[in-house]
Amino acid sequence: MRYAIIVSYDGSGYHGWQTQPGKKTVQSVVESAIEKITKDKINLHASGRTDSGVSALKQVAHFDSAVQLDRKFVGYINSLLPLDIRVLGIQQVGEGFHARYDVKKKTYAYRFYVSDIDIPLYEKSATRISNVDISVMKKEMAALLGKHDFTSFCASNTSVEDKVREIYAVKLKASEGMYEFEISGSGFLYNMVRIIAGTLFEIGCGKKGNLAQIITGKDRSLAGKTAPAKGLFLKDVQYKNLRW
Amino acid sequence: MRYAIIVSYDGSGYHGWQTQPGKKTVQSVVESAIEKITKDKINLHASGRTDSGVSALKQVAHFDSAVQLDRKFVGYINSLLPLDIRVLGIQQVGEGFHARYDVKKKTYAYRFYVSDIDIPLYEKSATRISNVDISVMKKEMAALLGKHDFTSFCASNTSVEDKVREIYAVKLKASEGMYEFEISGSGFLYNMVRIIAGTLFEIGCGKKGNLAQIITGKDRSLAGKTAPAKGLFLKDVQYKNLRW
Repeated sequence: MRYAIIVSYDGSGYHGWQTQPGKKTVQSVVESAIEKITKDKINLHASGRTDSGVSALKQVAHFDSAVQLDRKFVGYINSLLPLDIRVLGIQQVGEGFHARYDVKKKTYAYRFYVSDIDIPLYEKSATRISNVDISVMKKEMAALLGKHDFTSFCASNTSVEDKVREIYAVKLKASEGMYEFEISGSGFLYNMVRIIAGTLFEIGCGKKGNLAQIITGKDRSLAGKTAPAKGLFLKDVQYKNLRW
Repeated sequence: MRYAIIVSYDGSGYHGWQTQPGKKTVQSVVESAIEKITKDKINLHASGRTDSGVSALKQVAHFDSAVQLDRKFVGYINSLLPLDIRVLGIQQVGEGFHARYDVKKKTYAYRFYVSDIDIPLYEKSATRISNVDISVMKKEMAALLGKHDFTSFCASNTSVEDKVREIYAVKLKASEGMYEFEISGSGFLYNMVRIIAGTLFEIGCGKKGNLAQIITGKDRSLAGKTAPAKGLFLKDVQYKNLRW
């Protein structure tokens, strides 16, 4: 049987999602917990990796097991998991379902605040920037919408060939000095959201100009620095044939 | 000379604001840092104590020193403080100024989210509750406005005699499953905001009824449980004759 699960985690204590020898990762911790329940060897396939230090409100992953599992699995696995990882739901899916290939829409958010001095309460889960013009960021970010080759926003050490992705929506929400940049799309390249965030910060403080030109230039050196992992979290993953 | 400073802190690693023998508190850590700069013996007076685990976006405190201090003090003290405490500003004030007695308005916020399972990213700075009717909470909380004897919302081991406080504003803001209850007033009794939050949670899930009756009853046992410290933070303190 194939199962899909929702995994929610505070990534600050992990070397990202994907299993790496000798490192604590979300994937390996969740796989071990499932194995304690099913006694199967489990391979978890997520909607995509999240980097070291990146959190997720809702990550989706699938795995196969010979064991029949139901809703009780959720309480059981959460009693085995550390407090910074929680499984929020499980459902049986068709054998053809794939958590990565079947993604219809992914939504990431990047949290930041504007201050000349660190605000300790915000530092837990947001990145501090100073001297930005939020209205300029808002105006420029609209250039991200639609289908583009995002080579300028992809870590240069990546092996992916097709760098075309479609962005469905961008938002910049403000609440008393704390901001959340939210971006939804068909998928994202390695470090893409962090490079977009870093570029918007540089646009906001006047260091960089036109975002549309940075996109069409297809050159990583045109974009800004990769923003820190801390402000980023995976907010939602949606599929055609899967509802929770 | 008397100085007022703004202190911002993540209280999760501290036994509250106030100095206690053998315990790490925000007051004692900030006092020591100031003493390293002024070489005076420093007594910090805050707008009020915050409990163990409670954070502050903006706490205000005053101290006296024979040393002339200016804006450079901020950078200097922050280089001495741990990352979870920051001084955001300093100004010289009149000898008659008192950070506690001169408070005009204090604003606290209590963050919570509604879920049957812990959301690790939210758990850092919010309290989880399940099964509440937010609209009922919103309706009932209006009873807090105005001048009342808040005996029902005061920790019973308190020695304060006058339990009348005036509440200027209450808000309940929602953002994608995360809520923030904000309350402004002339001042607050020991544990008052946490007891109000806990009572609103019980009202929201139908365990308690009319908030106005709980206030007029003047009996701690009528109110709900004290909500956990984690969701609470001091948001702002305002004075008649002090602007930042």
